[in-house]
Amino acid sequence: MTTVRNIPISVEWKDTYIKLLDQQKLPNETVYVQLKTIEDVWDAIVTLKVRGAPAIGIAAAYGLALSTKQYNVESMDEFKDLFIKDIAYLASSRPTAVNLFWALERLTNVLHDSKSVNEAKTNIVHEAIQIQVEDEAVCHQIGDNALSLLQKGDKVMTICNAGSIATARYGTALAPFYLAKEKDFPLSVFACETRPVLQGARLTTWELQQAGVDVTLITDNMAAHTIIAKQVSAIIVGADRITANGDTANKIGTLGLAILAKHFNIPFYVAAPLSTFDISLKTGAEIPIEERSETEVTTIAGVKVAPDGVSVFNPAFDVTPNEYITAIITEKGVILGDLKEEIVKLFQ
Amino acid sequence: MTTVRNIPISVEWKDTYIKLLDQQKLPNETVYVQLKTIEDVWDAIVTLKVRGAPAIGIAAAYGLALSTKQYNVESMDEFKDLFIKDIAYLASSRPTAVNLFWALERLTNVLHDSKSVNEAKTNIVHEAIQIQVEDEAVCHQIGDNALSLLQKGDKVMTICNAGSIATARYGTALAPFYLAKEKDFPLSVFACETRPVLQGARLTTWELQQAGVDVTLITDNMAAHTIIAKQVSAIIVGADRITANGDTANKIGTLGLAILAKHFNIPFYVAAPLSTFDISLKTGAEIPIEERSETEVTTIAGVKVAPDGVSVFNPAFDVTPNEYITAIITEKGVILGDLKEEIVKLFQ
Repeated sequence: MTTVRNIPISVEWKDTYIKLLDQQKLPNETVYVQLKTIEDVWDAIVTLKVRGAPAIGIAAAYGLALSTKQYNVESMDEFKDLFIKDIAYLASSRPTAVNLFWALERLTNVLHDSKSVNEAKTNIVHEAIQIQVEDEAVCHQIGDNALSLLQKGDKVMTICNAGSIATARYGTALAPFYLAKEKDFPLSVFACETRPVLQGARLTTWELQQAGVDVTLITDNMAAHTIIAKQVSAIIVGADRITANGDTANKIGTLGLAILAKHFNIPFYVAAPLSTFDISLKTGAEIPIEERSETEVTTIAGVKVAPDGVSVFNPAFDVTPNEYITAIITEKGVILGDLKEEIVKLFQ
Repeated sequence: MTTVRNIPISVEWKDTYIKLLDQQKLPNETVYVQLKTIEDVWDAIVTLKVRGAPAIGIAAAYGLALSTKQYNVESMDEFKDLFIKDIAYLASSRPTAVNLFWALERLTNVLHDSKSVNEAKTNIVHEAIQIQVEDEAVCHQIGDNALSLLQKGDKVMTICNAGSIATARYGTALAPFYLAKEKDFPLSVFACETRPVLQGARLTTWELQQAGVDVTLITDNMAAHTIIAKQVSAIIVGADRITANGDTANKIGTLGLAILAKHFNIPFYVAAPLSTFDISLKTGAEIPIEERSETEVTTIAGVKVAPDGVSVFNPAFDVTPNEYITAIITEKGVILGDLKEEIVKLFQ
């Protein structure tokens, strides 16, 4: 058992400040910034210094904890007035981030259970830390469960960054590679660069490299040839949303990989916490697909790569139907077989 | 029948110079340069101002014609001495370009049939022009044959640039779109950007746009979702080399599109002249796959997008097995059915 010290962590509570990895500067510079005020945290979320749903939730919770610690009030009424303003302020940083609202709600519940200003301050800090501790435990368990499906020497392809820096630690799709490293269990990773925003090239290769995981970068269109040429044995991806039947919305390109996995008869795994399931939706057809700005496609790092006025289609996600998914790996175990039936059982 | 005036031409003979589209400046600037000497032509080939196998062959032929016109000699012996030097010089510009050697060989044959210096000069110019005329006719015929396979309103996906500016005119995979435009036959094109060198984003969208063809740019990993969301009805690609059984080497990413076409039950067409066939090779397994520099993947337009020291796999081509190819469209007709059997018949 090797201790892998260099699994990057994007958000850390330092009592008087938050230590945050500036993901915008990756991979060219590894910069950790100190967030000392709620405004710093708001700005870090808005400017995408922190990304990944769990990591955003943790940063927001710590931001609120940092602010409440500094409230100079004596009554709970005054405390609540400030708290409500802070919640609204943080919520405005990234209105589509579900985990952000979920984290702020957890802190609100804690406030309602507190009887004094001092108790509230302490409870809020503890709860914020607890959010991170729980997410790390969830990711670790997902990693363990995922690793149980892999063989020594496996070559595994992934897309986007379902990684340590998107969560409390370890990540989801990338968690098994860190746990494998700790156990000297040999695995290789092929990271698709993930156009248009290049999270695979910029973030996944970087964080795996930090921990000494064997990772090779390819462009997205190299996936089919790479599966043959490098004998890729499995594909593992994260998820943005999973519906009641197991259909999975994830970063654009995931569907193509799932079809390749089926074609080449290799397993296709989705690694995601139970919080990713939205069982209010029956199938993936109900998931709206966000379309993003044309300039994400037509410019790269500020350089124009397509002619003026060209039409662009830029969907941010695609939906992989349940029948292409070999298993969904959660912190509560591996969902195999008839995904729809198994998900019903899990949420009963 | 509409006359489409704006199908871009990359190489034009202007008697005292060659008018050449500088493809390196696309899509941000449309610059035509005047090549007045053989050195200018050599430089244009080396610096990739001209690319695409047929276009390179045409440029080289014109370069040699330009030079021979200026030979200040009286005997055929002297003429041949200079000619041999020029051939060797041009051949050194891009030693892997098969069409370049083929074009130079055609001019050499013409020289051997000439009886005087003046006759040689005239014949060489005529033959160089003839190479372009023939290639344009081949492309036009491929376009006609391809168009016969398409329906009005079809949405067709393509990758890389098998286009007008890679050939004399019209291109191969893109030829049907120009002919359709001339016939007011409505078609839409989805162009994959084609990482790492982005020929789809930089060149295909540009040249189709010039002629008013309806084209939409996507990143390569958007192909699967786009086929569903936009109801893409066919995929058409060019080819770098086709073996005796119909296996086709083409730009990396082609194989993935062929697998998607099979999965979604839409036709997958390869458009290529007979000169692309290499029937000395039995199957695609005999085609060596060139691997190119890591920096093509790790930097885009000079900007680093991946961490230092990351491993990269950068294959330039992949091989699509014959069973995924619905038809190969040549200037002599459409090869359908058992490709291996039909190719044998064609080359008998």
